[in-house]
Amino acid sequence: MLSEFELINLFRDIGSEYYEQNGIVLSPGDDCAIIDLPKPLIISVDASVADIHFPSNANPIDIGYRSVAVALSDLAAMGCFPRAFSLSVTSPINDKEWYINLSKGVKEIADEFEISLIGGDITKGPLNLNVIVYGTPYDSKVLKRSSAKIGDNIYISSQIGRAKKGLSDFVNGDLESEFIKDYLRPLPKIKLGKDIINLASACIDTSDGLLADLKNILKSSEVGAIIFLDDIPITSGIEDINAGDDYDLCFTMPSNIPNNDFYKIGEVIEGTEIKLVSDKGYDVDIKGFDHFNNE
Amino acid sequence: MLSEFELINLFRDIGSEYYEQNGIVLSPGDDCAIIDLPKPLIISVDASVADIHFPSNANPIDIGYRSVAVALSDLAAMGCFPRAFSLSVTSPINDKEWYINLSKGVKEIADEFEISLIGGDITKGPLNLNVIVYGTPYDSKVLKRSSAKIGDNIYISSQIGRAKKGLSDFVNGDLESEFIKDYLRPLPKIKLGKDIINLASACIDTSDGLLADLKNILKSSEVGAIIFLDDIPITSGIEDINAGDDYDLCFTMPSNIPNNDFYKIGEVIEGTEIKLVSDKGYDVDIKGFDHFNNE
Repeated sequence: MLSEFELINLFRDIGSEYYEQNGIVLSPGDDCAIIDLPKPLIISVDASVADIHFPSNANPIDIGYRSVAVALSDLAAMGCFPRAFSLSVTSPINDKEWYINLSKGVKEIADEFEISLIGGDITKGPLNLNVIVYGTPYDSKVLKRSSAKIGDNIYISSQIGRAKKGLSDFVNGDLESEFIKDYLRPLPKIKLGKDIINLASACIDTSDGLLADLKNILKSSEVGAIIFLDDIPITSGIEDINAGDDYDLCFTMPSNIPNNDFYKIGEVIEGTEIKLVSDKGYDVDIKGFDHFNNE
Repeated sequence: MLSEFELINLFRDIGSEYYEQNGIVLSPGDDCAIIDLPKPLIISVDASVADIHFPSNANPIDIGYRSVAVALSDLAAMGCFPRAFSLSVTSPINDKEWYINLSKGVKEIADEFEISLIGGDITKGPLNLNVIVYGTPYDSKVLKRSSAKIGDNIYISSQIGRAKKGLSDFVNGDLESEFIKDYLRPLPKIKLGKDIINLASACIDTSDGLLADLKNILKSSEVGAIIFLDDIPITSGIEDINAGDDYDLCFTMPSNIPNNDFYKIGEVIEGTEIKLVSDKGYDVDIKGFDHFNNE
């Protein structure tokens, strides 16, 4: 097994070639990192817990990749430019190869988005990864949840339920399934966030389920919505509106902005309710994932 | 039990009265927080894992306090002004009171240092807290590990081994022990870091053991040290030089800066070794805590 020092060395240079462009003044190796970027700094933290957020027997390359990807998705939802991240790994594993592969997955996504790993922690314990991401706005504004307006249209950019199907196929051993990559390798929609920053009125990423996350926009914006269930592109069934882990963006745009690039799934209305309508007879409850009341 | 939403609400306003002074532009409730402070930003993350960093049966008030305190200690070691923090909690616990008390401990230290909680995550799983701290320099410089110079004196500010004795007393049920608070309620030496910023040449916090942490200064600075074991204020015995969790600062100062406020424990010398000297016949190995090779 590697020592703690050797383990840290597997990770410490990840994204070091992007230090300058990302304003990293002091890199891993001191008590803290120092980041010197155009203000303000946009920050989010995401925990990935074994057998809650990923199967503990998944390939560590995928675990590393996915843990960073889901954190970056929060920067996408705000229309921000990813710059750097910190990684805290708690793991019971004694196999050197496992850590080498974990670091490969982390490096892969760091290179894909040209972000720098600026620090972290590594401790022994039940498998748990925490990723903290740091970004800067692409524009003078950032996307928020709280500014959806009555009359806006509601959009998503891709078919829902793919990740849920991927997890199910993985657990059932159908390893050829095209959906597994949607679960294990979600693509943070950074480019989409950038593209819609001056078009969208509100935005969120769909990690807990499309309708559960949309509810957060509606609550923050103090509005309601009508959702056309028949217009939502689904994978397994209409229950996919409660399927988590898609990491798409759900966003609202004023109705005078014509847009055929995305799936229009509803409209913002007065009130605080979500009305679900369907000519196909779809009937479904709004659930979404609650970590503490889902059993 | 509380829902995930109710749990988040226990924490979301912690330190909100300090948002303005700490540059918190967008507070918890969106996908990310936004922080707009004088540049640069100093960042560190610290994991606190149950039964590794704290006993899982400790009072959740202490668990909350301690998890933030040990992260702030990294800002102290760099001579920085604490501004904000993020908190990611993974917990298997279903008892509402436990979370209320956890949030009380977090609020207590947030108020003590006037820092704002700017976001986080809460998930179900084995007990694990990750705290990310954000600070700004007090001065034009920050304290680093890499600038100790040959001839400098080496200092600590307090008796070592107190936290180790506190943990031992706690585990053994000696709950009246004065040392327990040193373990469960470490004081991050923010004020000390500020006071020595223009005096110290290098600095680190002593979380893994005095000599193990000093080794990191020596390695980063490419120097050696002579340590006068007889001059180190100890609690249980000379083995305390390998005791973790004290969260004091260990720092070097040029020898022409007279200083009687701290304990001088050695001098920086040429080479890469630590020489331990004692007239009392103390003999001890340098160990320090390695999370992956300590069993």
